[in-house]
Amino acid sequence: MSFKEALDLRVVKIEEILAKYIPKEEGFQKTVLSAMNYSVEAGGKRLRPMFMEESYNLFSQKYGDDCESREVLHAFMSALEMIHTYSLVHDDLPAMDNDEYRRGKKTTHVVYGEAMAILAGDALLNYAYETAVKSIRDAKDAKRVGEALIVLSRKAGIYGMVGGQTVDVEAEKRNEELSEEQLLYIHENKTSALIQSALMVGAILGGAKASEIEIMEQMGYDIGIAFQIQDDILDITSSLEELGKPIGSDEKNNKATYVTLKGLKQAKQDVVTISEHALLLLQQLPGNTIFMKDLIVSLINRRK
Amino acid sequence: MSFKEALDLRVVKIEEILAKYIPKEEGFQKTVLSAMNYSVEAGGKRLRPMFMEESYNLFSQKYGDDCESREVLHAFMSALEMIHTYSLVHDDLPAMDNDEYRRGKKTTHVVYGEAMAILAGDALLNYAYETAVKSIRDAKDAKRVGEALIVLSRKAGIYGMVGGQTVDVEAEKRNEELSEEQLLYIHENKTSALIQSALMVGAILGGAKASEIEIMEQMGYDIGIAFQIQDDILDITSSLEELGKPIGSDEKNNKATYVTLKGLKQAKQDVVTISEHALLLLQQLPGNTIFMKDLIVSLINRRK
Repeated sequence: MSFKEALDLRVVKIEEILAKYIPKEEGFQKTVLSAMNYSVEAGGKRLRPMFMEESYNLFSQKYGDDCESREVLHAFMSALEMIHTYSLVHDDLPAMDNDEYRRGKKTTHVVYGEAMAILAGDALLNYAYETAVKSIRDAKDAKRVGEALIVLSRKAGIYGMVGGQTVDVEAEKRNEELSEEQLLYIHENKTSALIQSALMVGAILGGAKASEIEIMEQMGYDIGIAFQIQDDILDITSSLEELGKPIGSDEKNNKATYVTLKGLKQAKQDVVTISEHALLLLQQLPGNTIFMKDLIVSLINRRK
Repeated sequence: MSFKEALDLRVVKIEEILAKYIPKEEGFQKTVLSAMNYSVEAGGKRLRPMFMEESYNLFSQKYGDDCESREVLHAFMSALEMIHTYSLVHDDLPAMDNDEYRRGKKTTHVVYGEAMAILAGDALLNYAYETAVKSIRDAKDAKRVGEALIVLSRKAGIYGMVGGQTVDVEAEKRNEELSEEQLLYIHENKTSALIQSALMVGAILGGAKASEIEIMEQMGYDIGIAFQIQDDILDITSSLEELGKPIGSDEKNNKATYVTLKGLKQAKQDVVTISEHALLLLQQLPGNTIFMKDLIVSLINRRK
């Protein structure tokens, strides 16, 4: 099976798992449930649950029966994708990036209105935690699932994604030039944090040791930074058809990016260097790392 | 000590606990931390952490050493107040109720801007969960803390508060007359859910049995409904000075309330009837219930 086939198969399987964990559209609150599911079903690369599952696979091959069950893993995979989705729904709001399209589809607030989009984002975030905490009932080791919850919440919040978003929003508002340090803080938190969460939670549930969880955190940092620089590059070079969102939207919003800061050539070089560092870390991991390696490499070469 | 003195003392103690659990304002993301803390420190009745602590006290007197530690309780009290606060920050947004004042102070989006208020709400919600899940490390029984987390997340989300908010928002948008069933759904979820959460989480951490947790859920339903009807009554009858927010804001927003549906006289009668039902349930609880009783009675007679 080619990497592309393996990748497509995993996306299908992840979407089957997500379909089991998203809520049924029934009851008085049907509209918000429909808005939540619209947002989750809008597609995307499903990278975060994919990294989580792969990380879990590597360590559970090594540590065998000590690890948590697939049910616990699937709950966390779904929870993380819901967290990612809520962040997109809120990011797209008129008061934020004011984007009307994402992945070629109308954004949630365009379809459901602004108030419902705010609430659908809130609902997704709450339901993410509800989904993850419920898995404690299936836990072999509730304290271990607790550690996974701590990583999930920390990397999503003010010491993770939300922290990065706020610095990003503020920089735009002030219309200041960003330093490289500030931009890396934004990328580390806005993008790396949830990939770190994916890799670390997968490792924790798979029974990894502290030193191994740390390697996953470093690897997640690298992958997120490389991914985000690549995003900045694509924003300049890609076309609407390929990307599914308006090109140059960062430029439109007068946004400082890695490319405006370091130039296109240096940015492209840095994606390669950082990704290679991630692959070096990968060599320290147990089990069959071929898919993870291919996945990281594909992120470097992606065109959308 | 009078009830008023006991109440004031508890508010002071709860605010001391909150001060320990809200994040330090430092780092690149200082602004969002400041916006979070501004929102939490804006005051209010601290009813939810108060109910949680009191519920815990009743059951831990009965079940003694089996119960979770004060540290775990305090983390959950803070988490619930953060969840309550995030919901206010988002409710006040221009796309929602568009309120510029709350508790006599400018709302978060007026002070920090709309984008930052959205993110501060998101940050509070994430940090609420981060605070609560971290307490698993101190748990005597991690599965029991897990049950408390399940209640916390369920009552905050689509089968709780957010569910109620969305039905409320939709009804307003459509400008339809609400049925009593719909209005009670909104009140049950928008208001009762977090009081149920307070009472149930306190009971769980205090070692209560399933039947006792159920009584707390019923009592929380009653208290929330009575509280919300009283709120609807005050919105019509109170003055700006007393309430700290513009009077008639529900009417301004063309909002169906319990009072417009059933009339002022019936609404006042129902507050008394429902509160008395809550007090009947209270008689089934262990320990010294005097403060809890006074607290419920004070909610009936409150003027702001």
